[in-house]
Amino acid sequence: MSANCIFCRIVNGDLPSTKIYEDADTLAFMDIGPVVKGHALVIPKQHYDPITKTPVDVLARLMNVVRKIAQAQMNGLRADGVNVMNANGTVAGQQVPHLHFHVVPRFKTDGHRWNWAAKKYDSMEEMRKFAEEMKKAMWTTDHEESKF
Amino acid sequence: MSANCIFCRIVNGDLPSTKIYEDADTLAFMDIGPVVKGHALVIPKQHYDPITKTPVDVLARLMNVVRKIAQAQMNGLRADGVNVMNANGTVAGQQVPHLHFHVVPRFKTDGHRWNWAAKKYDSMEEMRKFAEEMKKAMWTTDHEESKF
Repeated sequence: MSANCIFCRIVNGDLPSTKIYEDADTLAFMDIGPVVKGHALVIPKQHYDPITKTPVDVLARLMNVVRKIAQAQMNGLRADGVNVMNANGTVAGQQVPHLHFHVVPRFKTDGHRWNWAAKKYDSMEEMRKFAEEMKKAMWTTDHEESKF
Repeated sequence: MSANCIFCRIVNGDLPSTKIYEDADTLAFMDIGPVVKGHALVIPKQHYDPITKTPVDVLARLMNVVRKIAQAQMNGLRADGVNVMNANGTVAGQQVPHLHFHVVPRFKTDGHRWNWAAKKYDSMEEMRKFAEEMKKAMWTTDHEESKF
């Protein structure tokens, strides 16, 4: 628990929230500034951030709840689709530095559009270079064994 | 495997891709239309769609790879942040109906902005009603036990 974290304070009951689901590890509650009405947040009760520093088992349990909330939006809200979003770092749009997944119900009538501005690589070679840099980083920095 | 699915064909080797990571269940490769250069896709090798019909253990293994790719973007590409995105349904922006997570490296200089147009509920009561509809749907339609 981080004393200044508003999500930790919500978990703790110091700040109010409209809860949808809760278990020993995970909490799902309403985002008060919804991109589309019905927009939920799913967080681990323990304070982790960013995704790369979150234990894989915590992330696995979290995603199981993300999946349940998506199902509830489809069945309960009659959503036509669902977006799952996670931001790490202020540059990515993260506002609260406690791992959270946005689960946003989508409706044919919701009028929302992400700014999905797909770009192009200058060449196949440029794309391969990006891939190579990532591959090298995976082998040199991530030796953690996963239990999955 | 679904014969007309381009991601199944990539898994199968019938279509080319620039791979970053691969294990028995999961494949990570470059998105050829990157929102930001370095943008990767992480998919289960088996054909599942949408997230709600993907087994929880498959999703758990997938997210472990999403986390590895995020780490590789931070370490290998020196990204300042990472976005993780998943769309279910064409209304949500999904183009290939095979479960996939976008992992997008973010840089202070990338110039990208999501259209994060936060709205407001008319009242607390309206927000609570959305939460209630989801809660009801979770208890009546989702009795699946998770192993996590």
